[in-house]
Amino acid sequence: MDKIIVTPLKQIHNPKGDVYHAMKKSDNGFEGFGEAYFSTINKDEIKGWKKHTQMTLNLIVPVGEIEFVVFDDESKEFFSIKLSQNNYNRLTVKPNVWMAFRGLGEYNILLNLASIEHEPSESINMEFEDIAYEW
Amino acid sequence: MDKIIVTPLKQIHNPKGDVYHAMKKSDNGFEGFGEAYFSTINKDEIKGWKKHTQMTLNLIVPVGEIEFVVFDDESKEFFSIKLSQNNYNRLTVKPNVWMAFRGLGEYNILLNLASIEHEPSESINMEFEDIAYEW
Repeated sequence: MDKIIVTPLKQIHNPKGDVYHAMKKSDNGFEGFGEAYFSTINKDEIKGWKKHTQMTLNLIVPVGEIEFVVFDDESKEFFSIKLSQNNYNRLTVKPNVWMAFRGLGEYNILLNLASIEHEPSESINMEFEDIAYEW
Repeated sequence: MDKIIVTPLKQIHNPKGDVYHAMKKSDNGFEGFGEAYFSTINKDEIKGWKKHTQMTLNLIVPVGEIEFVVFDDESKEFFSIKLSQNNYNRLTVKPNVWMAFRGLGEYNILLNLASIEHEPSESINMEFEDIAYEW
């Protein structure tokens, strides 16, 4: 799917506490900084579907494990990936695809480095049932 | 101390998992986006002292509790704050002060939204013992 990028991220061990990379402005997928926020997702809960028409998302999971599913309604393709400290990648999601995510661990948190500030009018929600996907 | 800013951040309750604000580009303390990274700090460990000569740090603690101590060697002032989900603020640290931080909870993680990319030559380290502070 050409509207997503998966980028492996460095984890730097330190005996006092590790350092985990998230994003540099020179990285592939960086489309400007608008806002950073965290979203937590409880075990077995799913948030979505949502489509952003302008925002590029850069998603990193520093705690827990989250499954992301992206659906491109032009190509009818699905893409899914489980991110965690054990599969530590950044998921870039470009505008105009549907996205939903599910909590897999006991406590799950994502960081979104978004290319624009939150603006309700640029995103569209759809009911969970309205896109058929075998979770 | 004029080289720090403490900004209360919103926590938005959601039954599927809460949302925690971190930073918008229009916020006070935003000096451009260079890099975002996570640093974990084990319980009772202290990382520091470090002084950045160019980087402005924007520090958020989404998990656990971390005590930050800032020392301005011009004014000889100390500043300290404990950040956590229960005291959910963003700590902006401007260049040219010393900073150290200690893990207080069982698992502690900070996000730094840094104004420039990591560049070893712009920061200076000092031994923990070299700044007298009653932790």
